[in-house]
Amino acid sequence: MTFQPVVVRKVERAAKDIVEVLGKLGVSTVHEAMGRVGLAKNYMRPVWQGAEASGSAITVLAQPGDNWMIHVAAEQCQPGDMMVVACAADNEDGMFGELLATSLKARGVTGLIIDAGCRDVKAIREMGFPVWSRAISAKGTVKATLGAVNIPVVCAGAAVNPGDVVVADEDGVVFVPRADAATVLKSAQTRLANEDEKRERLGKGELGLDMYKMREGLEKAGLRYIDSLDDLKK
Amino acid sequence: MTFQPVVVRKVERAAKDIVEVLGKLGVSTVHEAMGRVGLAKNYMRPVWQGAEASGSAITVLAQPGDNWMIHVAAEQCQPGDMMVVACAADNEDGMFGELLATSLKARGVTGLIIDAGCRDVKAIREMGFPVWSRAISAKGTVKATLGAVNIPVVCAGAAVNPGDVVVADEDGVVFVPRADAATVLKSAQTRLANEDEKRERLGKGELGLDMYKMREGLEKAGLRYIDSLDDLKK
Amino acid sequence: MTFQPVVVRKVERAAKDIVEVLGKLGVSTVHEAMGRVGLAKNYMRPVWQGAEASGSAITVLAQPGDNWMIHVAAEQCQPGDMMVVACAADNEDGMFGELLATSLKARGVTGLIIDAGCRDVKAIREMGFPVWSRAISAKGTVKATLGAVNIPVVCAGAAVNPGDVVVADEDGVVFVPRADAATVLKSAQTRLANEDEKRERLGKGELGLDMYKMREGLEKAGLRYIDSLDDLKK
Amino acid sequence: MTFQPVVVRKVERAAKDIVEVLGKLGVSTVHEAMGRVGLAKNYMRPVWQGAEASGSAITVLAQPGDNWMIHVAAEQCQPGDMMVVACAADNEDGMFGELLATSLKARGVTGLIIDAGCRDVKAIREMGFPVWSRAISAKGTVKATLGAVNIPVVCAGAAVNPGDVVVADEDGVVFVPRADAATVLKSAQTRLANEDEKRERLGKGELGLDMYKMREGLEKAGLRYIDSLDDLKK
Amino acid sequence: MTFQPVVVRKVERAAKDIVEVLGKLGVSTVHEAMGRVGLAKNYMRPVWQGAEASGSAITVLAQPGDNWMIHVAAEQCQPGDMMVVACAADNEDGMFGELLATSLKARGVTGLIIDAGCRDVKAIREMGFPVWSRAISAKGTVKATLGAVNIPVVCAGAAVNPGDVVVADEDGVVFVPRADAATVLKSAQTRLANEDEKRERLGKGELGLDMYKMREGLEKAGLRYIDSLDDLKK
Amino acid sequence: MTFQPVVVRKVERAAKDIVEVLGKLGVSTVHEAMGRVGLAKNYMRPVWQGAEASGSAITVLAQPGDNWMIHVAAEQCQPGDMMVVACAADNEDGMFGELLATSLKARGVTGLIIDAGCRDVKAIREMGFPVWSRAISAKGTVKATLGAVNIPVVCAGAAVNPGDVVVADEDGVVFVPRADAATVLKSAQTRLANEDEKRERLGKGELGLDMYKMREGLEKAGLRYIDSLDDLKK
Repeated sequence: MTFQPVVVRKVERAAKDIVEVLGKLGVSTVHEAMGRVGLAKNYMRPVWQGAEASGSAITVLAQPGDNWMIHVAAEQCQPGDMMVVACAADNEDGMFGELLATSLKARGVTGLIIDAGCRDVKAIREMGFPVWSRAISAKGTVKATLGAVNIPVVCAGAAVNPGDVVVADEDGVVFVPRADAATVLKSAQTRLANEDEKRERLGKGELGLDMYKMREGLEKAGLRYIDSLDDLKK
Repeated sequence: MTFQPVVVRKVERAAKDIVEVLGKLGVSTVHEAMGRVGLAKNYMRPVWQGAEASGSAITVLAQPGDNWMIHVAAEQCQPGDMMVVACAADNEDGMFGELLATSLKARGVTGLIIDAGCRDVKAIREMGFPVWSRAISAKGTVKATLGAVNIPVVCAGAAVNPGDVVVADEDGVVFVPRADAATVLKSAQTRLANEDEKRERLGKGELGLDMYKMREGLEKAGLRYIDSLDDLKK
Repeated sequence: MTFQPVVVRKVERAAKDIVEVLGKLGVSTVHEAMGRVGLAKNYMRPVWQGAEASGSAITVLAQPGDNWMIHVAAEQCQPGDMMVVACAADNEDGMFGELLATSLKARGVTGLIIDAGCRDVKAIREMGFPVWSRAISAKGTVKATLGAVNIPVVCAGAAVNPGDVVVADEDGVVFVPRADAATVLKSAQTRLANEDEKRERLGKGELGLDMYKMREGLEKAGLRYIDSLDDLKK
Repeated sequence: MTFQPVVVRKVERAAKDIVEVLGKLGVSTVHEAMGRVGLAKNYMRPVWQGAEASGSAITVLAQPGDNWMIHVAAEQCQPGDMMVVACAADNEDGMFGELLATSLKARGVTGLIIDAGCRDVKAIREMGFPVWSRAISAKGTVKATLGAVNIPVVCAGAAVNPGDVVVADEDGVVFVPRADAATVLKSAQTRLANEDEKRERLGKGELGLDMYKMREGLEKAGLRYIDSLDDLKK
Repeated sequence: MTFQPVVVRKVERAAKDIVEVLGKLGVSTVHEAMGRVGLAKNYMRPVWQGAEASGSAITVLAQPGDNWMIHVAAEQCQPGDMMVVACAADNEDGMFGELLATSLKARGVTGLIIDAGCRDVKAIREMGFPVWSRAISAKGTVKATLGAVNIPVVCAGAAVNPGDVVVADEDGVVFVPRADAATVLKSAQTRLANEDEKRERLGKGELGLDMYKMREGLEKAGLRYIDSLDDLKK
Repeated sequence: MTFQPVVVRKVERAAKDIVEVLGKLGVSTVHEAMGRVGLAKNYMRPVWQGAEASGSAITVLAQPGDNWMIHVAAEQCQPGDMMVVACAADNEDGMFGELLATSLKARGVTGLIIDAGCRDVKAIREMGFPVWSRAISAKGTVKATLGAVNIPVVCAGAAVNPGDVVVADEDGVVFVPRADAATVLKSAQTRLANEDEKRERLGKGELGLDMYKMREGLEKAGLRYIDSLDDLKK
């Protein structure tokens, strides 16, 4: 059978400095550096403005309306980890709240990505624990059915393996395969370096059309400049 | 016929101190104390961050695109009441804005729950009047078709009777039947007292697994700890 | 054929003072003054709280997942313009980010309305460039397929022509046909003047029922006041 | 506490002939006769075209992802009943399938209304058991957490009490309070009788404008007939 | 002001044979021939399988929850027309049912496009009157607030003018500007002729890659053929 | 970088007889046999009623609004394969139509799963080619940006690898990892055998409560049988 109620204890993680620098580069830059893949669906939003985090993924497969596995997963977390909760079916119940946030924070977890609901958002904001969820919901959950911890999951439309690097900020959430983390980091840094120059030039009023040398391509593709739509009828 | 265009003038309310303390306990705690029922759908969100309120429900059944009944209901409100607006069909028009907020605030109404849209949100935030709505929308409405005031309604998926206690904060909205308010209050307070100790223990790094004594139940349910998924193939 | 990949260079704009005053009047007031039309769908939200802008529309028809035309349109913008991006199919990709915002701001563009996604929202908030979008998304886009600039478009359910006046704030987005701008301005100002008096009266506790003289109409429509639902059975 | 895991065994039902005739009148007619209330949200759709049913409501409050209570409720059903399943949180899992349909059909249940998912839809269509659900989903469910049977519930936005009359067809689902069933029936029959004459007149080409005598009202409301929009500028 | 409650009586229509042939060509072909524009959003679905229609647009702007203007518009329809109903705000109420369908059919109207709900769908299917709507809903509507007839509208995200050609089938709905109808027809016919040959070749097993000569373009764009993902690591 | 525009030519497939029998067992049974995982989201629906198919997955990662890679993937298909199209961002454009269906059918492909739109649905139904899609849409697409073929993808929320077994019917779509196919088959057959006896017993009126021996568990969990809600107050 393909589902097994297991907790996998051994997780290989990317180097801490790579995880941290990827976090500083931010979601949009890292996503571009990956070749434009790896994003969670954009319904995943930070529960408080300004939240930013990165970490190594501890993955959870939870059942709808049931947060039992989050408690199980807490034990598997090390400082620098982020918890990534997928759900066996679409569910927006408030699986995560202040007490669990207190617990994860105490254990050095840097944030939570949950494809379900979050509650106690005021308290969570005040303690500065970063959470990305698909909903804010007070709906309470049960602890009745097993899921799994540290198996490959699909969270908000993205495939995630335990130990993958998670980067999350106001633009969303991206997952970087652990094996690619160093390469992505390099590519992202190159990309960012280029952006500084571009930002300056655009800030001085230079057009992207010129800076990116788009005019020829546009003309070749057939773009026409006219003074008025009436010109089309001539 | 089951619909009648009526305004019911006499509403029994819960004791003010109960309403206030329930408000301080907050939505998630009160919802748990009720046995995990009574919540409005989670699409109901505060129009400004930090909004918190509680009150006795004055209920309104409005027609889609029509806010006539909100004006009618204003007269029925007493200080300490909250207005709860249901709509006869899904509608996100901006039925409520600055002028109505000014009026309700002047009359001592503590907040509004509206299963439709709200507008003038900047002004409403600046005057500190708490509103929970399913949408922010500038769409204007008419005053043409009768609804009803202080009849039982379904607001955002929850059954509400006039005089029920409304509690709303950043986690959402919950409705407590008036007759149960005192019992729920007691249960919620007990619950909250328990949470303080739990929060402290979790904050010191104790695992929920141990604190809630979950290990035996998990094992009995069949949870297995393994080092790697490869162990499953052995 | 009805679609042509063109850039129309000449756009007639409304007078700058009209555009500015409409912006100050705000979306809800302007929408009412237009006879309750012209609104973008309410899924269009500011990417940062407090955003307010008005301008003359430079329209863009973009292809899904493709932001090529936004670069083309940047060249057509004058100080005081707002860019209005429609998409040939429903799409929430992050077509617009910090670099484009830097470019538009440098050219005096007052804001962006985009019926697609926006990214780099933290940077955009920090630079104070106002953007209204249907989603926040880090998803990167390509530059491969032509659209058009300054043709009539439908943006978020509203018809927009180049040169129309765009007004956007926390309540949403409204488009005023250029030819109607002066009339709408006048009507909106009258409306606003009336509101000041109403606000004062309502703030003193006067009921809308009395101020708007609704009682007779309600009675004629058949509204009944009763003490209890039991009265209906008598 | 407001939630109790109970099964209420005694349910008062409306007379069978009333239930049957309401079923023949159909959802739209019955809804109008009730004064335009009582409808489930329109996301509730028959899982096979042509499904029509009526019955007395046996209500179920189920937990998300859990169909335990449906089995409990089956025992409470009598021939002529319909089962109405509400869910404690939004959930689209396949709580109901061929085996349960076989069981309910064997017990004389006339149909199912479920604010969750249904599976085995081909088999259910072939056995002719009418089901209205919010989704078709193969997702399996557990039997772990208690709900309740025959308590008042909110199903798909509508308040339902045990014993209420359920009418469902291709237009959707409507719930008639048991106490109002006879009155609603009478009103619906009158309405239907009127429709026959109207249908005939409209079928012969008479305009609704004339048949309903709308012209005066339209004129009074300010409707203007013009030959062209240019007439407005004169 | 930009909204006026008017009925425009004179509408220029495209030639009947053009309208009919466009209808036979179908939505997807006509949409392609227009340069891939003109489609209504895909939430617009036929209320019965097999519905196909074309006609000249009689446009309606209705208010949410109000079908008064549909009655007004019926008088403006000629045989061969289709009615196109836009709504001043998102609304799914059942604005259209059997009686209106009887009326429109009697007057030679070929179908209805309504950006709102439809009811009595069984009767409408049985009488063979084609309807495309955003929802099926029994919710009744009022006749209280004026809209307009034969003004430019936005219906389901598409701009429509009175007299435009409407083509609708199981793939959706497309609107062809009247002035472009003849050109679009020609282009669509050419396109369809090409498809016959293509269909035959593909049916014999020829690859689109070869028939459309895509291989060179793909290679130029950088597509690589490998035997296994492991080849990427070499 | 994690994205590479590649076509992987070698795909290991499950044995044909396993694929076929899994297809006959159907989605719900196979999903249960997998331990309740592997389902695509329930927004994936057959474009014609009665569609049923199984096959070995040829996976495609397409760009939004771009169907180039579907043509590329067609060449990689063998008789008995099903094509599974994931999209790099949410998109409902009509990426697949009659010509592609003709091509795939000619090559022995047994069906298509596409997390985007499908058009020409009438023709596709008439040719009996099974398609599951998230939308029906006439929107045309371009061939401009590379994706990939036969890499691991996430389609409609489910992780799919090339060569996995796809089973699809009216209940939805499930993906079985190739390595688990034989085990799942066995488990599903056992499950089905059990169902025959259960169906017979339930059809004779036996309660699930008794057949599944639920009464003890329910009592232990705290379920109470009462005659009326008033009993709770005693």
